[in-house]
Amino acid sequence: MINVAVLGFGVVGSGVVELMDQNSSKIARKAGSPIKIKKILDVREFPTNAYSGMITGNSDEIFNDDSISIIVETIGGTDAAYKYTMKAFSKGKHVVTSNKELVASHGPELLACARENNVNYLFEASVGGGIPIIRPLSQCLAANEISEITGILNGTTNYMLTLMKNEKLSFEDALKSAQQKGYAEANPSSDIEGHDSCRKIAILSSIAYDEFLDYKKIPTKGISSITLSDIENAEREGSVIKLIASSKKTESGISAQVAPAVIPKNHPLAGVEDVFNAVLVKGNAIGEAMFYGRGAGKFPTASAVVADIIDIVDHMGVPRKNGTHSWVRQLQP
Amino acid sequence: MINVAVLGFGVVGSGVVELMDQNSSKIARKAGSPIKIKKILDVREFPTNAYSGMITGNSDEIFNDDSISIIVETIGGTDAAYKYTMKAFSKGKHVVTSNKELVASHGPELLACARENNVNYLFEASVGGGIPIIRPLSQCLAANEISEITGILNGTTNYMLTLMKNEKLSFEDALKSAQQKGYAEANPSSDIEGHDSCRKIAILSSIAYDEFLDYKKIPTKGISSITLSDIENAEREGSVIKLIASSKKTESGISAQVAPAVIPKNHPLAGVEDVFNAVLVKGNAIGEAMFYGRGAGKFPTASAVVADIIDIVDHMGVPRKNGTHSWVRQLQP
Repeated sequence: MINVAVLGFGVVGSGVVELMDQNSSKIARKAGSPIKIKKILDVREFPTNAYSGMITGNSDEIFNDDSISIIVETIGGTDAAYKYTMKAFSKGKHVVTSNKELVASHGPELLACARENNVNYLFEASVGGGIPIIRPLSQCLAANEISEITGILNGTTNYMLTLMKNEKLSFEDALKSAQQKGYAEANPSSDIEGHDSCRKIAILSSIAYDEFLDYKKIPTKGISSITLSDIENAEREGSVIKLIASSKKTESGISAQVAPAVIPKNHPLAGVEDVFNAVLVKGNAIGEAMFYGRGAGKFPTASAVVADIIDIVDHMGVPRKNGTHSWVRQLQP
Repeated sequence: MINVAVLGFGVVGSGVVELMDQNSSKIARKAGSPIKIKKILDVREFPTNAYSGMITGNSDEIFNDDSISIIVETIGGTDAAYKYTMKAFSKGKHVVTSNKELVASHGPELLACARENNVNYLFEASVGGGIPIIRPLSQCLAANEISEITGILNGTTNYMLTLMKNEKLSFEDALKSAQQKGYAEANPSSDIEGHDSCRKIAILSSIAYDEFLDYKKIPTKGISSITLSDIENAEREGSVIKLIASSKKTESGISAQVAPAVIPKNHPLAGVEDVFNAVLVKGNAIGEAMFYGRGAGKFPTASAVVADIIDIVDHMGVPRKNGTHSWVRQLQP
């Protein structure tokens, strides 16, 4: 029996707990061992929740429990999440996260710390929600020199742009709809100004090119200046407007950007609508491959978290020569 | 240094040899060790080829060479390929293959034999060419109960249907074009009668549902009866005709089929044109995900073969609790 603790009982955290329950037999079969959620850390109380008995506000109950070998960090942000992740490593616990801010800003340091402590730090859920993209980039396309990544990486803005195009809504009305549906937060700037996409393309690029790309250096423009008439103009030319996050590796180095782009309707990304995400990857052997699916949401994201947990359990007690994610080894000190 | 031998110096085999050369430093970094092609088995001679010095017609030079730990089988078919694969296992050598016929017909037996000999049998290249699909299904979606797979799995027929639609060619002329381009063989029945798609959906379904699906039991219809007027009729209704391989898992069991289908133009598979392949997967956590790319060709397929080689090297000397592909464990004797 492998014991897991979840930090943060929000949308993704509760999704992980519920998914582990719902698909427990398949998960145990895949991992080669039953896996149990033992504790959940949250400062809030959830008296009527089915899992309320597992919830604690005292992190010591988790970090001092040697029977817990895997920590799921779904707190978000870079404060408590950073502190708890480092603490987990120092206690010899593996960490799985969906936290793109933390991975984009402290990834190399955290991966190095995990390696020193002979544990794993996996973050498939940090980009693309349920879409398998980090493991395919890192493992399945390992024989390729990757030259280009182009993606729709933010579901909220893609939902808004789809609504503006299909329902002729203004930017403001599309934003209201996204907020009503729970896709956009009360302060939606991280999505609509492109910061969320920026962190995600930084993570994907770092893995694809085996070299850490600092998200702060990526020119980033969101969709807040896009009007309905821009979208109608694009449509008249047989095109659509999408918020595109992209990067290229050339002989002169790596370049990346996030910006709205007018793309023709026959482009593979043009048909990606609603909250869906997609990532196009160019490699020198495969040519072009695309990965498409739900880029956010409770269970899609939980699916990626649990796949990482299974991977860790499947390799437990096994010293790997390489981590699943190799880019930390390429970093300059 | 890890030594590899390639059996069969055809399109895929030569692609593997060239790709290992071209991307050798990236491959070594990913695998944690340099990897070298030491021998190539082929009955033909290639006197002017850059790799002619490695080519031998004597398989003993490969199987009796203890320094060769990985065999790449790109012979195809089920005769010599079967014999050599079993021999490799008995000699403690891992095998990577692109051979869908062999995996679809003898997969469970070969996986069991590999397991007995504590070696791996990996076959990412057997379905979808360069598209990462077997590893994503098996590992990335491991937390999902998968209920449905729908795919365009044969590049030749998809090229022909695209040509009939876009260029208004007859079936016969589209076939001639596919043969001229080298997509279809002189005897094209495996592609156009759906047998190739049938073996591929059998392999994907066996992995997705953790239960061996015998390809001989899958009702299979190809595109040889599709006329230009069928395609034009579909187009008038806002639809396209595609050769669809699909399977479902319900409470009453697993069903699968291969048949031409009329699908609406807004279906995610409708825009998959030319020799591209795509696979849509439904899981109870992710919802829907799609994997898209070049389903065949020298370097895309070689990319998948080399990714499997890297995976084996990365795990060398490490007893895995579970194989990458778990379905053999689920088989009834």
